Amino acid sequence: MQIIKYPQKGEWKFILKRPEIDSSVLNLTVTQVLDEVKNGGDKAVRKFSHKFDNLDIQTFRVTEEEINEGIKNTDTNLKKAIKKASLNIKKFHESQKTENIKIETMPGVHCWSKDMAIEKVGLYIPGGTAPLFSTILMLGIPATIVGCSKIILCTPPSINGKLAPAILYTANLVGLKEFYKIGGIQAIGAMAYGTETVPSVDKIFGPGNRYVTTAKQIVSTHGVAIDMPAGPSEVAIIADEYAIPEFVAADLLSQAEHGYDSQVILATTNNSLIELVETELKKQLNELPRKEIAKKSLENSKIILMQNKEELIDLINEYAPEHLIISSKHEKFYEENIINAGSVFLGNYTPESAGDYASGTNHTLPTNGYAKAFSGLNISDFMKKISFQRISKKGIHNIGNIIEIMAEAEHLHAHKNAVSLRLKNLDS
Amino acid sequence: MQIIKYPQKGEWKFILKRPEIDSSVLNLTVTQVLDEVKNGGDKAVRKFSHKFDNLDIQTFRVTEEEINEGIKNTDTNLKKAIKKASLNIKKFHESQKTENIKIETMPGVHCWSKDMAIEKVGLYIPGGTAPLFSTILMLGIPATIVGCSKIILCTPPSINGKLAPAILYTANLVGLKEFYKIGGIQAIGAMAYGTETVPSVDKIFGPGNRYVTTAKQIVSTHGVAIDMPAGPSEVAIIADEYAIPEFVAADLLSQAEHGYDSQVILATTNNSLIELVETELKKQLNELPRKEIAKKSLENSKIILMQNKEELIDLINEYAPEHLIISSKHEKFYEENIINAGSVFLGNYTPESAGDYASGTNHTLPTNGYAKAFSGLNISDFMKKISFQRISKKGIHNIGNIIEIMAEAEHLHAHKNAVSLRLKNLDS
Repeated sequence: MQIIKYPQKGEWKFILKRPEIDSSVLNLTVTQVLDEVKNGGDKAVRKFSHKFDNLDIQTFRVTEEEINEGIKNTDTNLKKAIKKASLNIKKFHESQKTENIKIETMPGVHCWSKDMAIEKVGLYIPGGTAPLFSTILMLGIPATIVGCSKIILCTPPSINGKLAPAILYTANLVGLKEFYKIGGIQAIGAMAYGTETVPSVDKIFGPGNRYVTTAKQIVSTHGVAIDMPAGPSEVAIIADEYAIPEFVAADLLSQAEHGYDSQVILATTNNSLIELVETELKKQLNELPRKEIAKKSLENSKIILMQNKEELIDLINEYAPEHLIISSKHEKFYEENIINAGSVFLGNYTPESAGDYASGTNHTLPTNGYAKAFSGLNISDFMKKISFQRISKKGIHNIGNIIEIMAEAEHLHAHKNAVSLRLKNLDS
Repeated sequence: MQIIKYPQKGEWKFILKRPEIDSSVLNLTVTQVLDEVKNGGDKAVRKFSHKFDNLDIQTFRVTEEEINEGIKNTDTNLKKAIKKASLNIKKFHESQKTENIKIETMPGVHCWSKDMAIEKVGLYIPGGTAPLFSTILMLGIPATIVGCSKIILCTPPSINGKLAPAILYTANLVGLKEFYKIGGIQAIGAMAYGTETVPSVDKIFGPGNRYVTTAKQIVSTHGVAIDMPAGPSEVAIIADEYAIPEFVAADLLSQAEHGYDSQVILATTNNSLIELVETELKKQLNELPRKEIAKKSLENSKIILMQNKEELIDLINEYAPEHLIISSKHEKFYEENIINAGSVFLGNYTPESAGDYASGTNHTLPTNGYAKAFSGLNISDFMKKISFQRISKKGIHNIGNIIEIMAEAEHLHAHKNAVSLRLKNLDS
């Protein structure tokens, strides 16, 4: 890891700079694929599944038999673990429910909001070397809690044309019913525009590679909502003499193993911690199956030594990490002063992997500095609010003239007239 | 208006189709301007203010004297009206505050969320023939309620280089301090990237023409959040024999006067209402200063006669209008069954203009069918949630093995190891 000691404030921006992701080079390819799926439907999806994923899929929809087979073939201990994790995630996300209050802003003027589930949502689960069943928990549970009436899931099958048993087990466990063996740009296109077999949805959720991310961005300008912009995963750790170097190293590595582009930062006020963590890193790195990936991403990662806790928290707020682990004697200070982060892990016994899998919080979090303006996924992402108002005769009598004056000042006379006619009607 | 009687369900999609807004043709121009602002700062902003708006602005920042002059020059009755409206809007938006609950998902595993104000937000107020001070209420009040630490406002000045008094009065009233006389693409660029005088922000809010909308869309792929995609304003009215034709016509016109591209739909189960409304429309249209605009947008608008209330609400849910007025003997039925709408106005004495200006609800609402997945603006748009967790030794003892099993099944061994090391430490 690169070690930077006592950087000047003017340098922070440069030190914290993330690699720029320029998706514009992919725009043309992705747009072409999306257009073809929009116009060609299933046939186009089949073509691109063959071209990009070397798959020859005739029927995209996963059958009842396949689901049952998957459930049967999932390891019993894994089933138990997923079940327990799902209960924690359910508990936490159910606690996010809020009540809408009806208020009378003026006598006779009643206003309120209603949270409504988005009707049709599409969940995308990437393929790759490992089945990401944990993401099904994170997307599927909030969707079922709020009661979206149609929830579909798209994920690319293995080269044998099947979905991993753990994927099917988890999807079934959280109550999903409709799965399609489609991946990549063509999956996003199918969910955005609909095909003969895949229904179009109102909002698309889920992670993916640069092609999937670009596809989501493009369809989001064509009337479909998306969850959030996605970038490589990140962790920042705030640690000092209170931290256990062995744990700090393990947490850095658990982020570094994600991919070559993972972002890892250790920020500390304690100079002697640096060497202890580095020694641990070397020791643990060699034991990892994904050590090549982890090694590479550590090379781009930084250990930053700061003068004091005030400067340190400013640095972290400037960075706005996706994950933030705090192992410090000043835990309370950092907890109270963190403004920009996706998810915060407090204390020596709270590894990021707890939130990735099982503690209850969502692992779909804003990367790339988006934590400054975006929340991690929560049940409100699967709902929208409708505002309502009801004004009585007394109400329009009280508020009417205010509206008339304001509408006239904005030169919107028909707006004014809609009120004036009603006021006149009251008098008659 | 076009009258369509008893359309088949298969035709709905076609009837409800909105004009497609293809912003891709603007992409090149807008990208060029944004790039130049990004690299050239104030100088580029000055250049485009001259080029697009024929303005020669040396100092963008509005001075204290200008603000005081604006306040002095605002009509007293208008001030009173704005003040009263602001209190209603404040009251309604304050009622949206929610509490975050801390929960223990397993013994020793504590999870909670915290709502944090987005630090830096930029509000855009379009120029044009009338000063849109009402939009300052709608954007500025929620921003100040949640406590964003920096709130800047950009709006183009009149040709004399000044901002309208009502703009300055309203901005000052809601507690804003920092205003810039910049409009169009260059304003969005300045707020997204920052210039020598304009600070960059984390999220940009506010309406605008196609150039502004496209600019917002482009900067949203460069690390800045935006409020929501914007399209032409719309109203749908559900009315039957309970409705007062004079009011229905007035409400249709108050939407139609917005612009040539405004969308207006009247859906009814009552055939005889149609003629009554049409007669009223003709009568009222001639009185309007903006009758040419209203006439034009009415030509593209539709009156749809439906068989029954069940079909009618399905049609409206399919359309997902920005504004929905319900003047019906079946008000309760429609209120309970509306799924997709931005804001709903119930009863004969609740004109849309009440929500546009003064009742308390926000007038920044999803258009173009986005009500299927987006909410109208509310205080949560000015905040983000950070999730927190704290796991005790007992907690990691309880949850550790669940995480280990799941991490291993996803082939993420460093994730597993971060837990295993902690569990081992417990035993020692």
